[in-house]
Amino acid sequence: MPKNTPPGPRDERGVLAARILAAARGAFADTGYAGTTIRAVARAADVDPALVYHYFGSKEALLDAATTPPQRWLQNVAQTWATPVPELGAALLRLMLAAWADDEIGPVLRSVLQTAAHEQSTREKLRRVVEAQLMGVSGLGVDERDRQVRSGLVSSQIMGLAMMRYIWQIEPMASMGDDELVAAIAPNLQRYIAGDLS
Amino acid sequence: MPKNTPPGPRDERGVLAARILAAARGAFADTGYAGTTIRAVARAADVDPALVYHYFGSKEALLDAATTPPQRWLQNVAQTWATPVPELGAALLRLMLAAWADDEIGPVLRSVLQTAAHEQSTREKLRRVVEAQLMGVSGLGVDERDRQVRSGLVSSQIMGLAMMRYIWQIEPMASMGDDELVAAIAPNLQRYIAGDLS
Repeated sequence: MPKNTPPGPRDERGVLAARILAAARGAFADTGYAGTTIRAVARAADVDPALVYHYFGSKEALLDAATTPPQRWLQNVAQTWATPVPELGAALLRLMLAAWADDEIGPVLRSVLQTAAHEQSTREKLRRVVEAQLMGVSGLGVDERDRQVRSGLVSSQIMGLAMMRYIWQIEPMASMGDDELVAAIAPNLQRYIAGDLS
Repeated sequence: MPKNTPPGPRDERGVLAARILAAARGAFADTGYAGTTIRAVARAADVDPALVYHYFGSKEALLDAATTPPQRWLQNVAQTWATPVPELGAALLRLMLAAWADDEIGPVLRSVLQTAAHEQSTREKLRRVVEAQLMGVSGLGVDERDRQVRSGLVSSQIMGLAMMRYIWQIEPMASMGDDELVAAIAPNLQRYIAGDLS
């Protein structure tokens, strides 16, 4: 797929590309990069393998497209870091909960976390996203290292909840309500954001 | 490998079995269950494939053996939950940090977390270990659900730190010292253990 002509979401090309990406997310998460073939993705998406090559060019480019979070979500994350400090923990947590419940964002996050466990290039991408989006835009802390430690700690709690709730599906974390989770976890995030950590 | 005759760690059989298990952990983590062959594991361990079958019987049994934490560690975890409440958060955290630094336990934990991302049977095993070991033995909370919520929250923070520090290797979490991590995180665990969560 030439970089300058992404498929629009509403035309036939967009519909087929979305179907291919959904199939690719499942395949990469289940069988890894090495175990995934364009042929198997095409079969799962019910399209001709030539169409997958035509749209995405290579297996590597398909992995990249399948594990790239939507730009609008990355913008949401960046904006959320501008929340006033006393509400920041709850805002970050609610953003994460909403993202996983979103039909477009949830499957990408799931695919990234599952594929990053065993695929080096996806782990690099996850690292870049966490460092740039979850940690990079914060204005926390008294200096650069303090800022990184505080946002890293926030990320560790948010990502741990995501693994327990959405990837490993361990109860009761998997089925607790959003409000109960926010009441339980947001104060801990607030300590990482503005508390004494020494 | 018959269940009643595990290879001893010091004889030749034990040395070869340990080498096969180490190779299997890498293979399952990197290429998943479907993408891993006994032949490839044998090659990585520099042994004959027949020996892998002789020791472990099947690929399924090999996965099970490769992702089963040592019994002595499971006992350590259970004992740690008996720590007096005011020190419990720090004790659980130091137990996890020591486990990942352990030559025998660390590679098993890494393999479980990497393989559980995409292999259903390993995810089931991780769920059982977390539910039974991290959440099952605690005496926290005022009732059964409160106990599960509190130990689930503790697990979410500990597992999130493990993913950031050891699997995804995101800085500064990956290289922070143990004492700094305990000072930063243990008070948050204490809130989950004994604080007001509503």
